[in-house]
Amino acid sequence: MLEQLKKAVLEANLELPKKGLVTYTWGNVSGIDRESGLIAIKPSGVEYDVMTAEDIVLIDLTGKVVEGKLKPSSDAPTHVALYNAFPEIGGVTHTHSRWATAFAQAGMGIPAYGTTHADYFYGEIPCTREMTKDEIQSEYEANTGTVIIEAFKDLNPNYVPAVLVKNHAPFTWGKSAAESVHNSVVLEEVAMMAIQCKQLNPNVTPMPKVLLDKHFMRKHGPKAYYGQK
Amino acid sequence: MLEQLKKAVLEANLELPKKGLVTYTWGNVSGIDRESGLIAIKPSGVEYDVMTAEDIVLIDLTGKVVEGKLKPSSDAPTHVALYNAFPEIGGVTHTHSRWATAFAQAGMGIPAYGTTHADYFYGEIPCTREMTKDEIQSEYEANTGTVIIEAFKDLNPNYVPAVLVKNHAPFTWGKSAAESVHNSVVLEEVAMMAIQCKQLNPNVTPMPKVLLDKHFMRKHGPKAYYGQK
Amino acid sequence: MLEQLKKAVLEANLELPKKGLVTYTWGNVSGIDRESGLIAIKPSGVEYDVMTAEDIVLIDLTGKVVEGKLKPSSDAPTHVALYNAFPEIGGVTHTHSRWATAFAQAGMGIPAYGTTHADYFYGEIPCTREMTKDEIQSEYEANTGTVIIEAFKDLNPNYVPAVLVKNHAPFTWGKSAAESVHNSVVLEEVAMMAIQCKQLNPNVTPMPKVLLDKHFMRKHGPKAYYGQK
Amino acid sequence: MLEQLKKAVLEANLELPKKGLVTYTWGNVSGIDRESGLIAIKPSGVEYDVMTAEDIVLIDLTGKVVEGKLKPSSDAPTHVALYNAFPEIGGVTHTHSRWATAFAQAGMGIPAYGTTHADYFYGEIPCTREMTKDEIQSEYEANTGTVIIEAFKDLNPNYVPAVLVKNHAPFTWGKSAAESVHNSVVLEEVAMMAIQCKQLNPNVTPMPKVLLDKHFMRKHGPKAYYGQK
Repeated sequence: MLEQLKKAVLEANLELPKKGLVTYTWGNVSGIDRESGLIAIKPSGVEYDVMTAEDIVLIDLTGKVVEGKLKPSSDAPTHVALYNAFPEIGGVTHTHSRWATAFAQAGMGIPAYGTTHADYFYGEIPCTREMTKDEIQSEYEANTGTVIIEAFKDLNPNYVPAVLVKNHAPFTWGKSAAESVHNSVVLEEVAMMAIQCKQLNPNVTPMPKVLLDKHFMRKHGPKAYYGQK
Repeated sequence: MLEQLKKAVLEANLELPKKGLVTYTWGNVSGIDRESGLIAIKPSGVEYDVMTAEDIVLIDLTGKVVEGKLKPSSDAPTHVALYNAFPEIGGVTHTHSRWATAFAQAGMGIPAYGTTHADYFYGEIPCTREMTKDEIQSEYEANTGTVIIEAFKDLNPNYVPAVLVKNHAPFTWGKSAAESVHNSVVLEEVAMMAIQCKQLNPNVTPMPKVLLDKHFMRKHGPKAYYGQK
Repeated sequence: MLEQLKKAVLEANLELPKKGLVTYTWGNVSGIDRESGLIAIKPSGVEYDVMTAEDIVLIDLTGKVVEGKLKPSSDAPTHVALYNAFPEIGGVTHTHSRWATAFAQAGMGIPAYGTTHADYFYGEIPCTREMTKDEIQSEYEANTGTVIIEAFKDLNPNYVPAVLVKNHAPFTWGKSAAESVHNSVVLEEVAMMAIQCKQLNPNVTPMPKVLLDKHFMRKHGPKAYYGQK
Repeated sequence: MLEQLKKAVLEANLELPKKGLVTYTWGNVSGIDRESGLIAIKPSGVEYDVMTAEDIVLIDLTGKVVEGKLKPSSDAPTHVALYNAFPEIGGVTHTHSRWATAFAQAGMGIPAYGTTHADYFYGEIPCTREMTKDEIQSEYEANTGTVIIEAFKDLNPNYVPAVLVKNHAPFTWGKSAAESVHNSVVLEEVAMMAIQCKQLNPNVTPMPKVLLDKHFMRKHGPKAYYGQK
């Protein structure tokens, strides 16, 4: 069932070690088939170099396993929460990539300091609030989704396809599994440059709004003119 | 037309991912044939691993496409502005390389702290002023050229073949497309070492003028004695 | 004798340069056969690319060579001390990996700032006290073990399988030689992210205890649910 | 003449890009045959991937070319000065490696913060004083040797086989060309860890003298017991 989606999700997962975003089995990518409401997701704790499309687990939008012999990623409930809350996204990626995770651990969002950021993220990439004791002790992974969604109550998730979970690490999303990985790669670049930028100039302020608008819209707005048609 | 130039520009573009200067399609290199006034430039948003010499677009010094099926890089008007303003340059490179972009985002030039810098750049690599709302909203890419040129009103572009565009990223240039890439590689090294140098010694001052003169001139002056004849 | 253990220890040693944890011959890994009380350990100062399973030296729990033509690693007495003091561990790794060594040189432990840390280390990774003149001048390597063991007098070494030796570098351990290397890789990631996190937010505090508990226990507690069964 | 030395010097030079110490042609290694007083050194500005043993230039201890069709490295007079002043060294390496160069640009020596340093360098790696205008404008490269030698007037160059030339970059040396490269690799590691160590703990002090003694002497002293016999 959904062989093509499973293959795409496998490839998206394999992209993580290739791009240097994960150590061991620390990342996971999923993709959704919106028509059937089924999510293809990485199995829990399986090494990337032995993973096959058959290992990819299918779950539904309540998190129930529909197909697959292995357990889905322990982060599956977070993925499910995001697919339910953000109806236009088609893929979700979670990593512990070094520079982005440093921001998450510091409890800080990543301000938009330059056009690399603005080409993909329309403003600051938020950091979630601290989770409560109850949220952590019961249904922790689903509640990780809850605090992410809360951080986007005044934000468009299609315009800021990334978040930092406090004391944890980033999640990114996109129209497909592949695009969500792409956004994780970009996030890591943006995080690295933001840290160095702050080191150089501790009083640095975010880029002018007009420049943020220009760069985001030339790639993503209705009159986008970046790339080929 | 200009097959050799297109091939050289292709190779210069392919050098960017090899040297670790670009992620995805974020960089672009061009080269000019001064006799015909034609510029060969990377197409917009095409992946490096599938790009061929035929994909390279030829444009003239007004930015008009003269040959090629693809759209030129969206940064083409910046390249055009530089070729028009700096008559001796033969190639231009734009990247979002990590360390140099950190300086651009911080809105700071890179002072000449050592001989690595002095071997290629005769003094501080400037950062452009902030662009106005009008400059950003209308002909943004051409105006990016305008603020670069303004930063060089008292500087010799052949002696300082690099600039940081505020809140954006670096541009470099050289006698050829290949040399402009070479200068991007050097810029990234110089930027990395300048950030670490400032971390170590926040009160560090630029290198003595006499040492700057010595190193730049032993490679680029009329009595240069570095390398083979 | 113990050919399988020697092969496992060889492979664990070869993993060090593959993971970028060592320069030249700076690291060493050992594994123990608890039944016979014999330890297989890397020979001293041998290059990784010529090392074979036959070069691996067998020593007993007093440090005496039992089999092998080469001298064991000069750090062997530290390994022996750890095997004697921590009866459940099966492997020990020592490296001078860059980021973790920076903490050791700074004389600081690595606080638990995020879930990457909490997935492997149940709280701060301690830094040993300064060794006395006597400890350094006589039986230095054995005494390195002494100060490590002292740092764990109120800590469970199975829950915090790593230490930083002040002005020196890290040691890690695990159920096997391979797992001790795995923990060295994780330690290096955790150290890198902790340094960047502190740069971003000098007032950062350790993660909430309840989140530390959750992450460590979902992988290592009696009700662990991470990975496949 | 001295074919074996030239081959060893070639190989030592090729080691520089392999170890990530040089960009383009920025480094150079030489080796000396003490009997004949002849130095084999890299030619100036030649790419590493086309260099052959025949390109290696032979010069004498006054700097005069004795054999070879190419010009020797422009830094040859510095090498010559070091061979004349330090009679026991057999090889010299010069690079602009990133982390060590940051110290040189900051005008700071590298204190001995840990055993990685102490295993190779018996105390702080010094930074030279600023060169005078005269020293720079006349016989600059020979005078670079002069300020290095001055920095060692109270230091044993065999015990501290590295120096940082202010506003420039490091030089290292050793018993052979290969060992001088080895020391450059170690220097870069030590410099990286020292910068991070200082970031973590701005008040960090050098390691205890007794620990410095222990580590340096267990590898280099008369009773050395590190490595195989």
